[in-house]
Amino acid sequence: MEPVKQIDIKENMKVSELIKEMSLSGVFGAGKLAKCADIFELMLKDKATIFLGAAGALVPAGMKNILIDLLGYVNVFVATGANLTHDLIEAIGHKHFQGNEHADDKKLNEKGIDRIYDVYMENKVYQDLEDFFDKHFDELKDITNIKEFLWKIGGFLDKKSILKTCYEKKIPIFCPGIADSGIGLMMNNKIMEGKEVKLKALEDLNEIIKISMDSKKKGVIYLGGGVPKNYIQQAMQFTSGADYGIQITLDRANTGGSSGAELKEGISWGKLNKDAKFVNLHCDVTIALPIIVAGLKEKIK
Amino acid sequence: MEPVKQIDIKENMKVSELIKEMSLSGVFGAGKLAKCADIFELMLKDKATIFLGAAGALVPAGMKNILIDLLGYVNVFVATGANLTHDLIEAIGHKHFQGNEHADDKKLNEKGIDRIYDVYMENKVYQDLEDFFDKHFDELKDITNIKEFLWKIGGFLDKKSILKTCYEKKIPIFCPGIADSGIGLMMNNKIMEGKEVKLKALEDLNEIIKISMDSKKKGVIYLGGGVPKNYIQQAMQFTSGADYGIQITLDRANTGGSSGAELKEGISWGKLNKDAKFVNLHCDVTIALPIIVAGLKEKIK
Amino acid sequence: MEPVKQIDIKENMKVSELIKEMSLSGVFGAGKLAKCADIFELMLKDKATIFLGAAGALVPAGMKNILIDLLGYVNVFVATGANLTHDLIEAIGHKHFQGNEHADDKKLNEKGIDRIYDVYMENKVYQDLEDFFDKHFDELKDITNIKEFLWKIGGFLDKKSILKTCYEKKIPIFCPGIADSGIGLMMNNKIMEGKEVKLKALEDLNEIIKISMDSKKKGVIYLGGGVPKNYIQQAMQFTSGADYGIQITLDRANTGGSSGAELKEGISWGKLNKDAKFVNLHCDVTIALPIIVAGLKEKIK
Amino acid sequence: MEPVKQIDIKENMKVSELIKEMSLSGVFGAGKLAKCADIFELMLKDKATIFLGAAGALVPAGMKNILIDLLGYVNVFVATGANLTHDLIEAIGHKHFQGNEHADDKKLNEKGIDRIYDVYMENKVYQDLEDFFDKHFDELKDITNIKEFLWKIGGFLDKKSILKTCYEKKIPIFCPGIADSGIGLMMNNKIMEGKEVKLKALEDLNEIIKISMDSKKKGVIYLGGGVPKNYIQQAMQFTSGADYGIQITLDRANTGGSSGAELKEGISWGKLNKDAKFVNLHCDVTIALPIIVAGLKEKIK
Repeated sequence: MEPVKQIDIKENMKVSELIKEMSLSGVFGAGKLAKCADIFELMLKDKATIFLGAAGALVPAGMKNILIDLLGYVNVFVATGANLTHDLIEAIGHKHFQGNEHADDKKLNEKGIDRIYDVYMENKVYQDLEDFFDKHFDELKDITNIKEFLWKIGGFLDKKSILKTCYEKKIPIFCPGIADSGIGLMMNNKIMEGKEVKLKALEDLNEIIKISMDSKKKGVIYLGGGVPKNYIQQAMQFTSGADYGIQITLDRANTGGSSGAELKEGISWGKLNKDAKFVNLHCDVTIALPIIVAGLKEKIK
Repeated sequence: MEPVKQIDIKENMKVSELIKEMSLSGVFGAGKLAKCADIFELMLKDKATIFLGAAGALVPAGMKNILIDLLGYVNVFVATGANLTHDLIEAIGHKHFQGNEHADDKKLNEKGIDRIYDVYMENKVYQDLEDFFDKHFDELKDITNIKEFLWKIGGFLDKKSILKTCYEKKIPIFCPGIADSGIGLMMNNKIMEGKEVKLKALEDLNEIIKISMDSKKKGVIYLGGGVPKNYIQQAMQFTSGADYGIQITLDRANTGGSSGAELKEGISWGKLNKDAKFVNLHCDVTIALPIIVAGLKEKIK
Repeated sequence: MEPVKQIDIKENMKVSELIKEMSLSGVFGAGKLAKCADIFELMLKDKATIFLGAAGALVPAGMKNILIDLLGYVNVFVATGANLTHDLIEAIGHKHFQGNEHADDKKLNEKGIDRIYDVYMENKVYQDLEDFFDKHFDELKDITNIKEFLWKIGGFLDKKSILKTCYEKKIPIFCPGIADSGIGLMMNNKIMEGKEVKLKALEDLNEIIKISMDSKKKGVIYLGGGVPKNYIQQAMQFTSGADYGIQITLDRANTGGSSGAELKEGISWGKLNKDAKFVNLHCDVTIALPIIVAGLKEKIK
Repeated sequence: MEPVKQIDIKENMKVSELIKEMSLSGVFGAGKLAKCADIFELMLKDKATIFLGAAGALVPAGMKNILIDLLGYVNVFVATGANLTHDLIEAIGHKHFQGNEHADDKKLNEKGIDRIYDVYMENKVYQDLEDFFDKHFDELKDITNIKEFLWKIGGFLDKKSILKTCYEKKIPIFCPGIADSGIGLMMNNKIMEGKEVKLKALEDLNEIIKISMDSKKKGVIYLGGGVPKNYIQQAMQFTSGADYGIQITLDRANTGGSSGAELKEGISWGKLNKDAKFVNLHCDVTIALPIIVAGLKEKIK
């Protein structure tokens, strides 16, 4: 048995040194956080095809640039419509603001401020979103493939953003719940005006399946649960299990939903290989992810 | 100030009597559970249009018949693909089984058993699902509207099920994340064989928006979060806020995701009216929902 | 494998009938809640010595009478000082009130109201508590045994209360964290006036150990975690493991604390027998406990 | 409104630089983690008397040396008996080991291994603990004050430990739940042999009250909840509210227990000043604490 090394903190410590100490302690959240960093490194060294799923409200939470960093390491990106809508909102010039989770929501409403836990957003962003889709509708309306549709949007953008990065690097980006987002609603506005939008619900599903089929080694990284996690999990289930897995979520397993299910459960389904290396970290993504990426940047250049 | 009445338990107590006691205590989980029952009753008395969102794995968890009961009270149903796939699995003759959350997933995999927390399902259900979609593919392939697609499937079924009930009662059923489900995958099999599937991603989005627009009073009920909750929330945001709200979830608000966000937050967005009556219950749906529905059945006939 | 029975809700359903349905479903929270009821019944039938630990703020939450009901079934009671202090506060004539967890705490402070999540208590209760201990100090100051001290307090009370019930039925009541409570503080007031209080920290520890040693069969019931759970657990560890276990808490296992630890972990320590029957229920005690006790009252008379 | 700065990760980043980025993002867990570091710094600059409460299983989790670091910054330490027992276990030469939370507890029991989530400890440590108390009993039996008792134990130790550090630096260390711990049980063994132990339950309670009374400015830091938090909170309540507060816990507010209660609630009670600076961080202590202390070491020398 390996002893739990008591963590030592030194002055001027680098994040990578802290991860090393956490790795030597090896237990509880600290040990699992270090294991996330270790498994990420293994995925990269093994040249695994990496599937990244990102749920939640990561862009409003200040994780946009870190997600863009991650796009330099991963091969497939699956997102909620919310993450992409907030990315687009910043890309067309808006910001998110530091708020208060105990705010009076009635007063915020009167001021035209939308609250996302302790983040504020001005409701007027929707007018600019609408203008954006007005301007580009003719180039978007005939696209049938959601991934191509998102790449096309990325191509319209000047500012550094997730959508633009996926477009430029041609990273397959999937958003099966596109109807459940501000982007979906903006396109629906046009439908309600009588126009046609040709996006098909299932057209790019075979693409993620094929990528999974064609990969010799595979790694999955889940930031939160939701559709992004489950969509990658089902791609594994219907092809072959992942060899590496990292899950960071505050969701619980006992609700029985996919979001909180431990990765281990996926072994029964064939979503994860029997001898896979994996870790479930119970932590706020905004705390864990910066640490992991800081460690990664030092190790993998 | 209203005192907390200490709850008294009597012999042979009816569920409705227990709810009454919980209502008089008025605090903590018990008080909020009773408030769910009260607000549900108010929605019905006020003839509000009721939007029910159901995430998670409610069918494997034994909630199918209760959901079918609820379909007798609500006007719009939004579900995850998972809930509908498991409903279909039971409708074509399979069952879910009582398992163990601490099981050895490698052994389960060898036996062909898929685990959902402490529920087991035989992996061979997928073969029968495939046969089902083989048999009905010609009637499904040209449907462009997801809601119509789901109704059509419901029409093929003999056994009591959610899909059949929605079909028979013509309850609008929305599943924006259809690509993220066993049903989506079965249709994708055909696409991979070179066939065409015409389902459009956004075609029925305007329908939920229109229903929301046309309703004088509205109530929302969220069983878990995920796409079903958010999809209803955005319909409120882009029309007018709900007058009544019930949310039952174990998700946390501080992840910032839509799933765990308190209903109160929706007031800032205009998803919920400023003077709405609402309650957030932190509870396993499988515990809270049977109690609420038992109370409802006695009060509303 | 036993199938998951889909739960059926009937009109005028009794709580015991609902538990029966949940038992047949057998999974998720509903199944575990029913299992709590079943295991409690088994403990009683097997004439096990039952150790009940109660943490949290159960009296303010309306659970006082249910706890008093439970004292009719159990043999040993371990409580936080908080539960006993709030019981005493009600016994000397005060009430707790229905409040709001989103209240402005600064305003509450100005009004002399103390908040416990969504329960309010008037701060002036402490003056009456002080008077109570002034009046009875001479009879309390020389007691060295915490259990005897609590019984003595119970003997002073007229109103139905936990303390009075333990006194009358001579139920061993342990409160190792007595210093961490309003009761402890009231006695400390006297110490600060220069008086002596003779309560000893460890005097009644051997009593719970001896009860555990002398019991042929044992059951443990944990409502929340904290000191009450751990104190019973250590009594098992240093004598012999429990044969039955029920744990109801919202605490998580991954903090590594005793409060959220699954009962299963206790098998490694010898706190729980290898063949023990046990269940961990993740639920608000104020929801689960009334249901379990309602079922119990019908089955065991 | 201050914008949410998107966090930028650089190569070779120091922990303090990461905290700075998190501080500029200002929201979600990352923002709150940075706020913990900021408030800790403010407490120190303001020369506040700092009360540190530590629950959970921090020593087995690798946090011992970090706690010892913290003892260089704080003025009062309140601990669970568990933390002190595990500290003593390491001080007399034993270690904790890296284990697996999914282990078979029956097999662990056969091997004499006790499990604490994913940490293992050899059960034979208890024999050595017993020998330790045998050896030192005569020097311990007549001590009436728990704090003096703990200091005395610290004085027996050679290895770096929490107990030894408190002894050497004469840091007031309180453990009101001493009966609920291995240390308490070891002393109880002697009582069961017929010997007398003079420890009094309330003797040192007035000491923490007096320290609180005599402090011009006060800060509270809660690592987990339990008795340590509540004991400090009640000292504030009966003297004057704290000026600074940091709480790191995974416990929920809606159980109504003290452990998960938001610090804000304490304002109603007078436990926290109306204009106090405080933060509630929902995070595993083993992740958050090393980061905060690393930042602190660089700022405060």
